[in-house]
Amino acid sequence: MLNKRMGKQTIKLHKPPSIVSTGSIVGPKEGAGPLCSFFDVILDDDLFNEKSWERSESKLQSEAIKIALNKGEVSTADVNYLFAGDLLNQLMSSNYAARATAIPFFGLYGACSTMAESLSLGAMTVDGGFAQKVLCVTSSHFSSAERQFRYPLEFGNQRALTTQWTVTGSGAALLSVQDKPPYITHVTTGKIIDPGIKDVNNMGAAMAPAAADTIIQHFEDTKFSVNDYDLIITGDLGIIGKSIVLDLVQQEGYDIKNIYQDCGVKIFDNEKQDTHAGGSGCGCSAVVFCGYIYSKLKEGSLNRVLLVSTGALHSTTSIQQGESIPGIAHAVTISNT
Amino acid sequence: MLNKRMGKQTIKLHKPPSIVSTGSIVGPKEGAGPLCSFFDVILDDDLFNEKSWERSESKLQSEAIKIALNKGEVSTADVNYLFAGDLLNQLMSSNYAARATAIPFFGLYGACSTMAESLSLGAMTVDGGFAQKVLCVTSSHFSSAERQFRYPLEFGNQRALTTQWTVTGSGAALLSVQDKPPYITHVTTGKIIDPGIKDVNNMGAAMAPAAADTIIQHFEDTKFSVNDYDLIITGDLGIIGKSIVLDLVQQEGYDIKNIYQDCGVKIFDNEKQDTHAGGSGCGCSAVVFCGYIYSKLKEGSLNRVLLVSTGALHSTTSIQQGESIPGIAHAVTISNT
Repeated sequence: MLNKRMGKQTIKLHKPPSIVSTGSIVGPKEGAGPLCSFFDVILDDDLFNEKSWERSESKLQSEAIKIALNKGEVSTADVNYLFAGDLLNQLMSSNYAARATAIPFFGLYGACSTMAESLSLGAMTVDGGFAQKVLCVTSSHFSSAERQFRYPLEFGNQRALTTQWTVTGSGAALLSVQDKPPYITHVTTGKIIDPGIKDVNNMGAAMAPAAADTIIQHFEDTKFSVNDYDLIITGDLGIIGKSIVLDLVQQEGYDIKNIYQDCGVKIFDNEKQDTHAGGSGCGCSAVVFCGYIYSKLKEGSLNRVLLVSTGALHSTTSIQQGESIPGIAHAVTISNT
Repeated sequence: MLNKRMGKQTIKLHKPPSIVSTGSIVGPKEGAGPLCSFFDVILDDDLFNEKSWERSESKLQSEAIKIALNKGEVSTADVNYLFAGDLLNQLMSSNYAARATAIPFFGLYGACSTMAESLSLGAMTVDGGFAQKVLCVTSSHFSSAERQFRYPLEFGNQRALTTQWTVTGSGAALLSVQDKPPYITHVTTGKIIDPGIKDVNNMGAAMAPAAADTIIQHFEDTKFSVNDYDLIITGDLGIIGKSIVLDLVQQEGYDIKNIYQDCGVKIFDNEKQDTHAGGSGCGCSAVVFCGYIYSKLKEGSLNRVLLVSTGALHSTTSIQQGESIPGIAHAVTISNT
């Protein structure tokens, strides 16, 4: 029996799947941010010519898929599985986007950790000999998320300074058995860590201990050193969560501060764009990875990256019932060698 | 490169994972039904000593996990991955159950198809060399589902005759590299089929074409004949969906009527229990499989079963926005040889 396990929570892929192409599409606010030059499409209007934000979000996924397939010169018929998820109840955006593709479909929910969840399962599926090609896709939309998780936009509530801004966007990655860098080489799957936080306006703090746990576990499992990475980037902890992760990881003896970033911090210019603690949402690590990081890997200015997407696994019901917010973080190593 | 693919949507596992144990727990109504003798635990009260139905549902998952682990003589620390899902927004029941286990966790959403989705991904993970042991778990709860998807129970609305009754229950299956029948030998992953139905009180009809598509595709991909199976059982199509599947599969030349059943039809005595079109929910195929079918496989009165869990991938928002209900069905072959 083949054993690809390393330590408690990590696997080493024997024939690392290639990420042969990606697609990214974002809303106007993300397109006005510092990473604007890395996205394939920037919308003028976040309704995207649809009659609801939910339909718009679903169309974002469809577009991201189309871009990734076009760049990879692959048709939907050649894709064996679609792994997709989003933040909406019952994965509304993913279901309707998946319907249009007719690709065998596994729906995933990991809140904002879903991009790394989809890359993990997608990579395992290719490495395991179950597929030649798979698509990994997630999305989020500021306006659909606000009205589902918080308040109607028309209400115009004041936002706490710890609040994050849900990214409008979708990212899709096409994985293949084809031998072409970058590759997904390792997968560290997170367990739930719940620091007991009940404030939905401070999700960075709720997710940070899970992110730190997964990063530390990744190093323990793989015996990698911090120097083995050019970049460790969490999904959407924002400014507050990022500083907590730095502290927690540092306490365990891993000095990551020179190579550590957060997608939620990178995607907006917080000073100018008034996004408070930074960006969030399933779409955040999706577009930062599929746009910015993937470009840097392709051009060789980054060669080894640990992508750690982070999720806050609460619902409006769980919060109303007084539960705390469970956090989770999944990590994948993406490397040019 | 190993290739485990058969035809368009099916894979053949090279070293079929064993289902070494299962756990099942149901509510009082399910415990008064015809399959009562097959469940491990039957509750007296569907609140299960909790203060909300959502917390009760989460506890159902925890209990099902505990039973499966006890029977398999395995502790949570020995389980490499937990694949779980439910019907609640953002997988509330699964998240809190997963938190208590501290097992690396992949959250799944496939509506009522989630049990077969979790068995599919769980089996692929074991067969691919990524895990020694995984847990696959789903749940549903009549009272939490009614108030989320339909009306508050206090409203006392009349139920349409096409409506199904969400099963209160949870089923957990422990998969292992250990060589001990029954095994998961084949996985056929469904694509979304949407027949255009917008009536949420007729989900059997909305899901039936997807179930038929997956069953037909399974036969086309594997070249199995109907006689290779002792039982083909869909997840929760109920009386109406079941009759549609029979027609659709028959039209393609596969005469399955003597071996075809539906978990939603089997779990309740519709005449006596007033459940209209039958049972439904993520918990339906979970408890029928983990309770009834698994027992029959172990005693050898069934030797080869195709479990086809079926999901209706709508949300209250998608229905309010006038969308139709996308259907999906995932199939796994479970065999003693």
